[in-house]
Amino acid sequence: MTALSIGRGVTLGSAEELEAALRHIGATRYHSLHPFHRLLHGGKLNKGQVQAWALNRYYYQSTIPIKDAVVISRFRDRATRVEWRHRIEDHDGEVGSEGGIERWLKLFVAVGLDEGMVKREEGILPATRFAVDAYVRFVWDKPLTEAIASSLTELFSPGIIKERVSGMLASYDFIDEETLSYFKPRLNQAPRDAEFALAYVKQHAKTPEERRKVCEALLFKCDVLWSQLDALHHAYVLGGGIPPGCFEPHEQTYAVGKVA
Amino acid sequence: MTALSIGRGVTLGSAEELEAALRHIGATRYHSLHPFHRLLHGGKLNKGQVQAWALNRYYYQSTIPIKDAVVISRFRDRATRVEWRHRIEDHDGEVGSEGGIERWLKLFVAVGLDEGMVKREEGILPATRFAVDAYVRFVWDKPLTEAIASSLTELFSPGIIKERVSGMLASYDFIDEETLSYFKPRLNQAPRDAEFALAYVKQHAKTPEERRKVCEALLFKCDVLWSQLDALHHAYVLGGGIPPGCFEPHEQTYAVGKVA
Repeated sequence: MTALSIGRGVTLGSAEELEAALRHIGATRYHSLHPFHRLLHGGKLNKGQVQAWALNRYYYQSTIPIKDAVVISRFRDRATRVEWRHRIEDHDGEVGSEGGIERWLKLFVAVGLDEGMVKREEGILPATRFAVDAYVRFVWDKPLTEAIASSLTELFSPGIIKERVSGMLASYDFIDEETLSYFKPRLNQAPRDAEFALAYVKQHAKTPEERRKVCEALLFKCDVLWSQLDALHHAYVLGGGIPPGCFEPHEQTYAVGKVA
Repeated sequence: MTALSIGRGVTLGSAEELEAALRHIGATRYHSLHPFHRLLHGGKLNKGQVQAWALNRYYYQSTIPIKDAVVISRFRDRATRVEWRHRIEDHDGEVGSEGGIERWLKLFVAVGLDEGMVKREEGILPATRFAVDAYVRFVWDKPLTEAIASSLTELFSPGIIKERVSGMLASYDFIDEETLSYFKPRLNQAPRDAEFALAYVKQHAKTPEERRKVCEALLFKCDVLWSQLDALHHAYVLGGGIPPGCFEPHEQTYAVGKVA
């Protein structure tokens, strides 16, 4: 038995069956189930490990508005573009007003990372980059309904965010409410966005085959999130070795994956 | 200190300095240094772990001629296309005569994997797919000299192949010379190919900045190889957890990352 029991005997004959399948994927494959998250939220990581998480996660986070711009670029339908634009606004903010990415940077400062380093994308794990870049490529390459469907992990994010905020606040003395200010707005933003995306795929995937593709897009996205945690877990928790050129928590400076 | 001591104080003022920098990258960042390879070549893996390696490595291997076709497609210069075509021929063979990929499949059969499964690309780790796909995308997106440079890991492959063949033959009773027939021709093919690529980048990268880009292309490729071993090491050696839907060595059947 594996997590993907959906693989056998599931029918996708209606929009309701599609929604049930998507929710089952979330319940069995969302990265909230990954051991690294249990450690993070349970206060079992040291500061260096939290730094590694924040540094790598930022590459994902800061790529989301780029991904969303690609999605927008593919729609000739103005109404969908306008709806999707919220997502970029939520992350990038406005001139003079902070967006999600600015709020995320507060977390770096709190955990002792240098903001400039973060923005230069130094020291992140190759697996982070490959997974995140695969996500951007996915929304560029795939049919529109699948591009939309790949965002559906947001259906499941309020749960993990609540766990993260309460767990990290309780566990780490370098974390406070202000540090985690990225997450609170996401509790409202993510469900609104996910609701639109869910309605979209339920309406536009009209055949069992198209619904299967929607499920595969969500599985793909779960893989994108999961593999990022695998890489963190390997390098920074299990002692599998930090890949050459990547962030070394115990050093003030570290080599970067580029030739200076 | 990290493996990338090349990062500081290295000058790239000439083709010879470039070659020295490239060889230094190989000596410090090629995946022969990864702990998973030491285990594989030292006979420390069980059959299921060798299966996982063969299955995942095949995705890389079978993507190489696709990558090389992209490289060829980008050259208007016929002579370079003809030279590069060897690479596809080496891997894909001819009608009725086996190429490298056919020889690679012998390894699967020997380790007890089903050939059909392998060709359907079932059960491979998401990190494998993201890394390999990033390589194809790299040669598609980057300037020609960098696309060529990313193949330069072949400068270092004869060493690892010799270690692999002798180590695996000595260590695993399910491995014999025939099983490893992929590797022997590579001992001649790889140096010939690498020689061409090295001469190409030495000739075409004319400024320190261009030579730096060549080094970065090789670093990128080292990351592609390294992160594949990280993912295997995490899932199948260190007990970090097999990602949902991926190959489970102890089961005859396993769930796939797709909705059936």
